[in-house]
Amino acid sequence: MPCNEELITPIEFKDGKVIILDQKKLPHKEIYLEINSPEELIKAIIELSIRGAPLLGLAGIYGLYLASLKSKNYSEFEKYALEIKSARPTALNLPKIVEETLKSLEIIKNRRDMKEISKIILNKAGELEEELKKESIAIAKNGSKLIEKNDAILTHCNSGSLAVSGLGTALGIIKYAHSEGKNIKVYFTETRPLLQGARLTSYELLKNKIPSTLIVDSAVGYFMREKKINKVIVGADRIAKNGDTANKIGTYQIAVIAHLHKIPFYVAAPKSTFDESLNSGEEIPIEFRNSDEIKNIFETKIAPEETEALNPAFDITPGGLISSFITEEGIININS
Amino acid sequence: MPCNEELITPIEFKDGKVIILDQKKLPHKEIYLEINSPEELIKAIIELSIRGAPLLGLAGIYGLYLASLKSKNYSEFEKYALEIKSARPTALNLPKIVEETLKSLEIIKNRRDMKEISKIILNKAGELEEELKKESIAIAKNGSKLIEKNDAILTHCNSGSLAVSGLGTALGIIKYAHSEGKNIKVYFTETRPLLQGARLTSYELLKNKIPSTLIVDSAVGYFMREKKINKVIVGADRIAKNGDTANKIGTYQIAVIAHLHKIPFYVAAPKSTFDESLNSGEEIPIEFRNSDEIKNIFETKIAPEETEALNPAFDITPGGLISSFITEEGIININS
Repeated sequence: MPCNEELITPIEFKDGKVIILDQKKLPHKEIYLEINSPEELIKAIIELSIRGAPLLGLAGIYGLYLASLKSKNYSEFEKYALEIKSARPTALNLPKIVEETLKSLEIIKNRRDMKEISKIILNKAGELEEELKKESIAIAKNGSKLIEKNDAILTHCNSGSLAVSGLGTALGIIKYAHSEGKNIKVYFTETRPLLQGARLTSYELLKNKIPSTLIVDSAVGYFMREKKINKVIVGADRIAKNGDTANKIGTYQIAVIAHLHKIPFYVAAPKSTFDESLNSGEEIPIEFRNSDEIKNIFETKIAPEETEALNPAFDITPGGLISSFITEEGIININS
Repeated sequence: MPCNEELITPIEFKDGKVIILDQKKLPHKEIYLEINSPEELIKAIIELSIRGAPLLGLAGIYGLYLASLKSKNYSEFEKYALEIKSARPTALNLPKIVEETLKSLEIIKNRRDMKEISKIILNKAGELEEELKKESIAIAKNGSKLIEKNDAILTHCNSGSLAVSGLGTALGIIKYAHSEGKNIKVYFTETRPLLQGARLTSYELLKNKIPSTLIVDSAVGYFMREKKINKVIVGADRIAKNGDTANKIGTYQIAVIAHLHKIPFYVAAPKSTFDESLNSGEEIPIEFRNSDEIKNIFETKIAPEETEALNPAFDITPGGLISSFITEEGIININS
């Protein structure tokens, strides 16, 4: 194993309870929340105490487990499932896992009681967790082949252990390449508004002792023009058939600048993030979050009360700007 | 006059004292600081209580005035002048005005005492203030010709009354076009790390009742791709002979994305911002500021203590990406 990944467990089933690491409070406080109901889980998803596309899938299935415990019958459970599925719209993993689970329960739902259904879901959660960990290592190994000695790699947002149960996607590759002694350097954006870079990626990079530099989102162009960055790797929330990729707001403009500077731009994601039902990125729903996330940083107001703000949480990077996709099954080049 | 500009006076000589509006405290508190020494003025410049390229020129000359009051002789005064000149390196206006003033004093320095020199400098400050106000209106009028009805204009950082003594440069044009009833809409970036957009541009836009939307720096690409923005106007800190322009970090990547989307990108600046001694942007010194400006937002820590950060305050936009320069003398097209 490339690094001490035991240190970061964003979600866990322990002593009969679902426990999540509250990512809102990182990096200053490591607080674990005991989640006792589907309502609490949905709240944790909406408020981003738990986040990251692959991890949202796992959170969703634990949500279904909690819903099954609370529901008197299957139709009550199904109502909860719909709420969990739509807690956040952009990342594919959450609705996909909920739909898949419902589908797998469809044939047995009338023959089993809720207790048995709970057990089935809990098993499925355990399986998914294992699967995510394996995928993450496979992505890391595949991606690391693209990393050369002394590379200076830019990443955006957080796509590490805190976004996946395991090593991570984009950040997993970075950790793996570092552990192989490739002497890499990382630039990472703070990722406004919710600062997943400054708060979460920083935390993982420090834990893994990877040489790294935090920059503001708008300094990417500066550092590319100064030739300080020679590769970009980011994660993904949903990928359409033509390669158009939804990811954290700001990804699109990083891809545009990278393209201008002829810097390879890689997207790392498990196959479960590829949405075969969508022809292009135009069909991917973009979540708009509360404008207070921009106007307040933690408890500090940064703009006048009356100022209007718009807060799209994701954008679409056209497939044409993506050099390769790095998946657990290998490297996919859609532009060659 | 297009709008109630009396409301914002970033620097003023009143009852024998230099008074500045502390921009660090805006928009939540309007605090005026009495500046009694060149040291206090230099501190206010370094800490950005006063900022904005044209305004830094005016602040510089008031700094020279305070230095002349404190100096026992001309050589002491010259030492202060050097300190003032180098308080911030990127904006041309500050070193230029200090050099010009020293040059104009050169022939009389041995024939006049410090009291007389103080008077001469104070006069020069008054003249410059008037000049900046006139320039600002001329820029606004010239720029407004480029603005059409229903335009949606993006601006970055703050280039309004808080950056110039007067209407502003880029933001001055926006105010002027709004006052002409052009029914414009403004998108403005928050401008990390020091949030001049969220704090200062928001304040001026609200005072002028201009419909506007605050976005994070990394959402520019999203809104351009969604065709919500059809023009960009920004200010400048220094412009080389080939049109390469230093401005707030993030300007370069906005210009790149605008170019891709065929959105006109205008730079508004007085002729005093054009540095005829520099052939290209490579020669413009870029100020790196303390990384704590990124790692802390006001008193809130957003990243781990041990995280390293780099904080270039400006970047260079190549002249080739700039559709036109808007000056007090007219529109300059270097690419046609």
